[in-house]
Amino acid sequence: MFDLAAGAQGVKVPIDQDRLWQRHAEMAAFGQIPGPRADRSGVNRPCFSADDIAARQLLITWARARGYSVHQDPIANLFIRRAGTTDGAPVATGSHMDTQPRGGRFDGIYGVLAGFEVLEALDDAGIATTHPLEVVAWTNEEGGRFAPGTMGSMVYAGAAKIEQFLDTTDIAGTRFADALAATLAATPAPVDRRFGDAFAGYIEAHIEQGPRLEHAGARIGVVTGIQGMAWFEVTIRGETAHAGTCPVGQRRDALRAAHAAISSLYQLTADPDDTLRFTIGRFVVDPGSPNTVPNLVRFSIDMRHPDPDTLARLADAIPSTIAGAVGPCTAEVRTTNRKAPMRFDPAVIDRVEAATKVLGLPYLVMPSGAGHDAGYVADLCPTGMVFIPCEAGVSHNEAEFARPEDLAAGAAVLASSLLGMAGTR
Amino acid sequence: MFDLAAGAQGVKVPIDQDRLWQRHAEMAAFGQIPGPRADRSGVNRPCFSADDIAARQLLITWARARGYSVHQDPIANLFIRRAGTTDGAPVATGSHMDTQPRGGRFDGIYGVLAGFEVLEALDDAGIATTHPLEVVAWTNEEGGRFAPGTMGSMVYAGAAKIEQFLDTTDIAGTRFADALAATLAATPAPVDRRFGDAFAGYIEAHIEQGPRLEHAGARIGVVTGIQGMAWFEVTIRGETAHAGTCPVGQRRDALRAAHAAISSLYQLTADPDDTLRFTIGRFVVDPGSPNTVPNLVRFSIDMRHPDPDTLARLADAIPSTIAGAVGPCTAEVRTTNRKAPMRFDPAVIDRVEAATKVLGLPYLVMPSGAGHDAGYVADLCPTGMVFIPCEAGVSHNEAEFARPEDLAAGAAVLASSLLGMAGTR
Repeated sequence: MFDLAAGAQGVKVPIDQDRLWQRHAEMAAFGQIPGPRADRSGVNRPCFSADDIAARQLLITWARARGYSVHQDPIANLFIRRAGTTDGAPVATGSHMDTQPRGGRFDGIYGVLAGFEVLEALDDAGIATTHPLEVVAWTNEEGGRFAPGTMGSMVYAGAAKIEQFLDTTDIAGTRFADALAATLAATPAPVDRRFGDAFAGYIEAHIEQGPRLEHAGARIGVVTGIQGMAWFEVTIRGETAHAGTCPVGQRRDALRAAHAAISSLYQLTADPDDTLRFTIGRFVVDPGSPNTVPNLVRFSIDMRHPDPDTLARLADAIPSTIAGAVGPCTAEVRTTNRKAPMRFDPAVIDRVEAATKVLGLPYLVMPSGAGHDAGYVADLCPTGMVFIPCEAGVSHNEAEFARPEDLAAGAAVLASSLLGMAGTR
Repeated sequence: MFDLAAGAQGVKVPIDQDRLWQRHAEMAAFGQIPGPRADRSGVNRPCFSADDIAARQLLITWARARGYSVHQDPIANLFIRRAGTTDGAPVATGSHMDTQPRGGRFDGIYGVLAGFEVLEALDDAGIATTHPLEVVAWTNEEGGRFAPGTMGSMVYAGAAKIEQFLDTTDIAGTRFADALAATLAATPAPVDRRFGDAFAGYIEAHIEQGPRLEHAGARIGVVTGIQGMAWFEVTIRGETAHAGTCPVGQRRDALRAAHAAISSLYQLTADPDDTLRFTIGRFVVDPGSPNTVPNLVRFSIDMRHPDPDTLARLADAIPSTIAGAVGPCTAEVRTTNRKAPMRFDPAVIDRVEAATKVLGLPYLVMPSGAGHDAGYVADLCPTGMVFIPCEAGVSHNEAEFARPEDLAAGAAVLASSLLGMAGTR
């Protein structure tokens, strides 16, 4: 049990580590797939699949057993509400219940179950809050079945209209609209929530999905925002030549040019702070024969940084950096994605950090490398996030693992932070 | 007409440029495929195809019209013999008549037709030689239909046994032995030549298949030998990670490691003389997703050099060079091919150079980047080669082109060199 004496005005919130772990195990049964070890199965639970619907139904059963009210909006975002002593805007938490096709037992569902644990722990301790508390399960965060991801929070926050997505189909040809209707029909909760209804605040708990916390020996990540992203597709064109006959000095070797371009990119993006993420993940060579000088190379760039100026400066420098390095070849640089960094509310960040300190948990203040529903909810209300470590930083993989004590620690930080926002006496 | 006064004891050999060009056009009809321009068709004439057989038949028709005798050996190497004033070992020339699937009108066939032009020109000038002269069309130099290439010269010279190849099949499942039998049956020439029958000497004319001559403004390449070759397949292994969450410093990025390895390889193989050929033609990345750090890169190395010590020193240094550069990843380096350089007979090289000088043709003394039948014939007798330029160095391509005046110049050098070896009075 975590003692939140200082963090929440003398209130103790009895987070039940075993119950939280058990709830993860129960949810992991929906869509279970083999993992690397017998005790580490994975999960394949696409949005609006039978397993997703079953998970929603189980959550509702748990909520009803506690007397919480349950609501849905027209995109099947699910709201579990514990009443406050007043009828103000709810303070919310949550995440998503869908997974990647070969996903794990923690990505997304942890944020829902940690939120639900907070509600139950408050019940157990007999603590009332001024504002209502809500746990939200956002629809289709992963986007693995219906692209794009973060659809539910995006529509709720007004960043997109539901109509944009209704005709989207999965690879079997099923329309999003039909799968949505079937899910709403199978979910025993009224569709009485409107998009954009205000929250007093929102904090999302999530596994880090990266190795920084584990590497630093930290148990909590106080998340400052979601870093920005710039994606490029680079095409280098040269000329084929015979590897045996054509002198190196007379070649227009697309691979040699791509190599020089990447050298310059590595120099441009070298970061002593190791905050910048720079990745070349795709690299294709044509014609790809050992004794033919390549005439074409196409590679991807994925660059991310939490600071908008840094990201913009580097992204803007990429085309000229490449063009200046390819010698006798030509380069074409196409921007394929660009998203500015976003920062969470400073007061929420401070609140999460303060709660972590009071609990005596080692922590890092860090941006999120991946996107999350909180990135859209931040358009509606003061928002923040709490990260917990996952083993070796592995996620989107059946091997994904987080320790029970870290799940509980994150829930305790969440409880303290939510209590501070929701008010109690 | 080239005046060979000084090069061949006052003898003039009237090389007929138009006839030589016309013979190329007639042969190009067998297997003609569209080229980049209406007047530049390509050729697809696989070994033992109907087109290859038709080309052999036409050559025999021309030979019979001149009164030359025609012979075959059991692998269908074709020998056109112009008698000498004595019955000594023949001085030979030639090349091959098969092409790459998308080949040109000069690779191989030029060496056969230039040789045949020398025979006809000697007839026209009424010049007799002491040794007989032979034009050889070697079977299956390209290896495009039946692997490996240079099969005919390899077997003739004793570097392989014909039995090794009889069960080789093409992609349609046709056995080499059956295609060979059909070709011998369709070719009106006796199979009365034994493998390994000695030549007094051999000189092969060929297009350069590279850009060096054109680049230097030279019209003849005096070929010193065939450079050696070392092939490797390199596998770099790291670990996948999320491009957004995993800090660069904590990655085991197989692409970054491959990039560092290639930087070191480029340094190792930098050659101010531009004699070394170093090519990375194949480069495959796994999993190849833009937002996933690659866990595996596999790339090819094709390295060639005419000097055996240089080639051996560099080839031996490659595994440690790579191993020292891949940081947190691992590297596996496998040798997939290794062939020592070979040098042609110094006296033949000198003879070709002297003939070129006498004709006043600008020339380069150079190794061959590609393999040729002459590389095997050199095991039997003093051997050399004559190169002529091809446009932009392009070969193994429908766009392959050589100028009529260069075809004739090469034939003149060949005539002079062969006359010197065969003797005349």
